[in-house]
Amino acid sequence: MGKNLTKRSTDYSKWYNELVIKADLAENSGVRGCMVIKPYGFAIWEKMQAGLDKMFKDTGHQNAYFPLFIPKSYLSKEASHVEGFAKECAVVTHYRLKNAEDGSGIVVDEKAKLEEELIVRPTSETIIWDTYRKWVQSYRDLPLLINQWANVVRWEMRTRLFLRTAEFLWQEGHTAHATEQEAIDEAELILRLYAEFAEKHMAVPVIKGTKTPSERFAGAVETYCIEALMQDGKALQAGTSHFLGQNFARAFDVKFANKEGKQEYVWATSWGVSTRLMGALIMTHSDDNGLVLPPVLAPIQVVIVPIYKGLEELEAIDAKVGPLVEKLKTMGISVKYDNRDTHKPGFKFNEYELKGVPVRLAIGPRDLEKGTYEVARRDTLEKETVASEVVVDKISTLLTEIQENLFRRAAEFRDDRISTVDDYQEFKALLEEKGGFIAAHWDGTPETEDLIKEETKATIRCIPLEGYGETGSCMVTGKPSKQRVLFARAY
Amino acid sequence: MGKNLTKRSTDYSKWYNELVIKADLAENSGVRGCMVIKPYGFAIWEKMQAGLDKMFKDTGHQNAYFPLFIPKSYLSKEASHVEGFAKECAVVTHYRLKNAEDGSGIVVDEKAKLEEELIVRPTSETIIWDTYRKWVQSYRDLPLLINQWANVVRWEMRTRLFLRTAEFLWQEGHTAHATEQEAIDEAELILRLYAEFAEKHMAVPVIKGTKTPSERFAGAVETYCIEALMQDGKALQAGTSHFLGQNFARAFDVKFANKEGKQEYVWATSWGVSTRLMGALIMTHSDDNGLVLPPVLAPIQVVIVPIYKGLEELEAIDAKVGPLVEKLKTMGISVKYDNRDTHKPGFKFNEYELKGVPVRLAIGPRDLEKGTYEVARRDTLEKETVASEVVVDKISTLLTEIQENLFRRAAEFRDDRISTVDDYQEFKALLEEKGGFIAAHWDGTPETEDLIKEETKATIRCIPLEGYGETGSCMVTGKPSKQRVLFARAY
Repeated sequence: MGKNLTKRSTDYSKWYNELVIKADLAENSGVRGCMVIKPYGFAIWEKMQAGLDKMFKDTGHQNAYFPLFIPKSYLSKEASHVEGFAKECAVVTHYRLKNAEDGSGIVVDEKAKLEEELIVRPTSETIIWDTYRKWVQSYRDLPLLINQWANVVRWEMRTRLFLRTAEFLWQEGHTAHATEQEAIDEAELILRLYAEFAEKHMAVPVIKGTKTPSERFAGAVETYCIEALMQDGKALQAGTSHFLGQNFARAFDVKFANKEGKQEYVWATSWGVSTRLMGALIMTHSDDNGLVLPPVLAPIQVVIVPIYKGLEELEAIDAKVGPLVEKLKTMGISVKYDNRDTHKPGFKFNEYELKGVPVRLAIGPRDLEKGTYEVARRDTLEKETVASEVVVDKISTLLTEIQENLFRRAAEFRDDRISTVDDYQEFKALLEEKGGFIAAHWDGTPETEDLIKEETKATIRCIPLEGYGETGSCMVTGKPSKQRVLFARAY
Repeated sequence: MGKNLTKRSTDYSKWYNELVIKADLAENSGVRGCMVIKPYGFAIWEKMQAGLDKMFKDTGHQNAYFPLFIPKSYLSKEASHVEGFAKECAVVTHYRLKNAEDGSGIVVDEKAKLEEELIVRPTSETIIWDTYRKWVQSYRDLPLLINQWANVVRWEMRTRLFLRTAEFLWQEGHTAHATEQEAIDEAELILRLYAEFAEKHMAVPVIKGTKTPSERFAGAVETYCIEALMQDGKALQAGTSHFLGQNFARAFDVKFANKEGKQEYVWATSWGVSTRLMGALIMTHSDDNGLVLPPVLAPIQVVIVPIYKGLEELEAIDAKVGPLVEKLKTMGISVKYDNRDTHKPGFKFNEYELKGVPVRLAIGPRDLEKGTYEVARRDTLEKETVASEVVVDKISTLLTEIQENLFRRAAEFRDDRISTVDDYQEFKALLEEKGGFIAAHWDGTPETEDLIKEETKATIRCIPLEGYGETGSCMVTGKPSKQRVLFARAY
């Protein structure tokens, strides 16, 4: 194929890294751990943003914007939060540069030292709850249903494009409620919303569950999550929604007067998905020929490539394709007619395959004669010849079919890799041989969880909300277990 | 009116600060110089973003994302850029926090000191041109037409909401071209695009011009700008577009092989508008009753307030208003029906006036009887009674009329405050008495420019691109002048 892409079966990790670069999605920058998201990759992220943003707004949320910086002392106010986040952070200590006295360049002006260091936000609970204190007086001010699209920084030592970067883009929702139940309902609403987005937009099947106490967000009472399975059998956490109880309200003294006039602490949630979803998208659908994109998120849904010799043939094809392009655009289908004369059709075929364009049309002189197009679909690589009169319908149908097929294919792949195991030796063997999710009984203690993690590198991805409800005995200790939980090695 | 808003004539600056807070647009945060953009303010900014983003994409630009951090050494690479930007910056020096040994809280881990400090981007030319070096080899890779929506930080000592904050939101375009002319054309295209956005979306009339050398962007060969006039007679720079020549290409060694295979440096532009536009919007249209928003940018274009006693009357009004709301929504008009029973109609009228909702409908039992609505427009505060059958047409017409009226009113106000002056004493007197733009002759030297600035606090806002073409003599030195330039005191 001329793409020089490592095969997935040879080295999955290498395949991923190469694909992200070759498909023009992202690259490493001159700043350690920070990526550049290239236009093609960013166009996919923009479609994700638009889809999620609409879902947030349709459920009554509003966007706002809070400061990039968090005073160091804010991080200390919520006890478990500080343990989780006040570690690998970018710390701003000075606010001025000056010319070096020896003329060697610019240096930090030591006179411009901040009284209190500022942390570049790793997440915004603290600065936002410091703000909510001023916004909430009465039950009439509640709920606050607020989201922000922002960049955050966590100083990761080992980074990978989209999956783990020092700076990443995300959305973080932060809501405040008058009652515990309302906050729990909100956290669960968002969990369902994330699952719907993953499945309907990204065509990525996910399992909804809760995290074990040791995997919870720092400061949460309950962490809900959606978990996806990548092609190499490793799990990926695709989104989390946290019920925070009154922890942040207590830490930042956010109280309201209830209907009876009594002062109460506010109940909270927070929830987020990030550019990590790009990694999930890539590793769920793509193949050895390159990216495979679900039509809903593809920046270019249809590409049309002319096959011609000489200007006359090209002009005839241009004349034929022009109205088709217009028609598709009016239908809201994103189409590119690539009649560049600097590149050969074979090069273009390769390029759009690599970039995962769902539907490719080719048209040459013989098609012109016969009134046809060659129509190829990216998911199955199947081609067929389609009459011009029905090509619009064909495209429209194909886009729906591809979206559905990608989801079905991924769901089958995932379902084939959920194993039910009762024996710890079998558990270990299965992890090595097959990977995937393993539904097993666990005694509910962090000690057993840690032991399994240490011995197998598998973690409890979630306690599933649906299915797996039967009781049993822990595969390690034999102690009673209320339900099966899902283990996997994970990104 | 019960809004307790300082009158503009009493204290314009105080009026502005109060209005931003009371209309729920933004507020100061716990982090010095950083603002919180509240949901209502952010909804206006989102509409600006959407409008601009569409214009950028329609002219062939793509979005991407570059790192938040810039290695200190990058800033030094372009000589005049470093003078302009390597000053008041947020400097990251460490990447870890730890628990203090004495248990007093968290402290910076001195072992985690960065080898090279990172600067939180004040603007992204350096990191982007460091990236472009890898993206550009041949003329076939050009032009690069890229924009990013981002947060930037400039450590301002004196801050004001939207107008001057340490962190602000903006878009920054960075383009690379094969020829000088193409880059100049791009910078001018964006200038026209900004002007169109200001006038058509914001209803803010602007003057297009170039900056004098001393007011140019650090690193630019030419800075184009649009200048608006606020109600207090002070100018506000609403957007800039820079032709950067080959300065950044030389600094970051970005060359391409031209069609003849010869290596040449790439030509560049950069351009940006920021949340400062929110300040321009507020100070162009608003009045002593609160915000006045042009319909194109209003988060709520129409609000409907029921006037009723008892549930029965409210239900009758609900039944009548329901279909109207649906109808307006299908027309793409953003409408809110505020039937909260926790607040009186008078309170609601006040609130929506304060928030600048362009059209307000009220409906009470007598309107129900007669089949009418009371329709009020925010720009003129005029009210009239309109029959239900024609109220949709009326609203639709009003939204267009208000948009046009706001622009016309602002243009008249601005035109009344452009004075032509040939005498320096008259210039000084006029600045004090009337403010506004003063078109005067200047000898083209930075010395005269500085002198005028020092003596009058007026700066040359721009050398206008249209009109003012006649030659003359400098009002200060009597030396020859090629054209009049526009002076003003400015934000």
